[in-house]
Amino acid sequence: MNTVNLKEKFCLFSEYWSPKIVGELNGQNVKLAKFKGEFVWHKHDNEDEMFFVVDGILKIEFRDKTVTINEGEFIIVPKGIEHKPVAEQEVFVMLFEPATTLNTGNTESNLTKHKLDWI
Amino acid sequence: MNTVNLKEKFCLFSEYWSPKIVGELNGQNVKLAKFKGEFVWHKHDNEDEMFFVVDGILKIEFRDKTVTINEGEFIIVPKGIEHKPVAEQEVFVMLFEPATTLNTGNTESNLTKHKLDWI
Repeated sequence: MNTVNLKEKFCLFSEYWSPKIVGELNGQNVKLAKFKGEFVWHKHDNEDEMFFVVDGILKIEFRDKTVTINEGEFIIVPKGIEHKPVAEQEVFVMLFEPATTLNTGNTESNLTKHKLDWI
Repeated sequence: MNTVNLKEKFCLFSEYWSPKIVGELNGQNVKLAKFKGEFVWHKHDNEDEMFFVVDGILKIEFRDKTVTINEGEFIIVPKGIEHKPVAEQEVFVMLFEPATTLNTGNTESNLTKHKLDWI
């Protein structure tokens, strides 16, 4: 039962689009990720997904609009909704989602991470 | 599917030990709370609970130690573990826990909140 310092954890990795697990509770994972550039369009059929922006600006494209999430803000993307994260500049994100969630959801791509590391 | 700005939400209430719901995903709630002073000893038999400190310093007393959680840090208190949050100064906290979680767990007190408001 240790405290987790987000800044310290973000110093431990540099690769983009590769979430790291930093906590687990009630079957949900807390993950940290660095994003830069454009991700792939995807959806999660059974999992809602929360993006909390720790540093930077995240945009998430939906089929009908684009939402901007600034530092200190979060958005919850409901299951089944197609979305594409876009980071024009590097952004640090804390994710909250079921432990079963695959980063690219229903879209297999070279960005898909089948196994995530704890840091 | 709106963004939630933590600073704006924290401006909407002032009472201590009275969590407000700001999000729901996968049966879990995202809550914001302001703490000051000492809470009551309690535990949650079936729910792990995450405390993320947004502003200030939170201490959580356990039966065998006290843990300090600074701004930008979180701790996950596993189900069944007795704990008592203490805030020597005002602290702003984001909580993640199942929607069913009662703030005082197994300890009924005048701080117990049976119904939480969305803000």
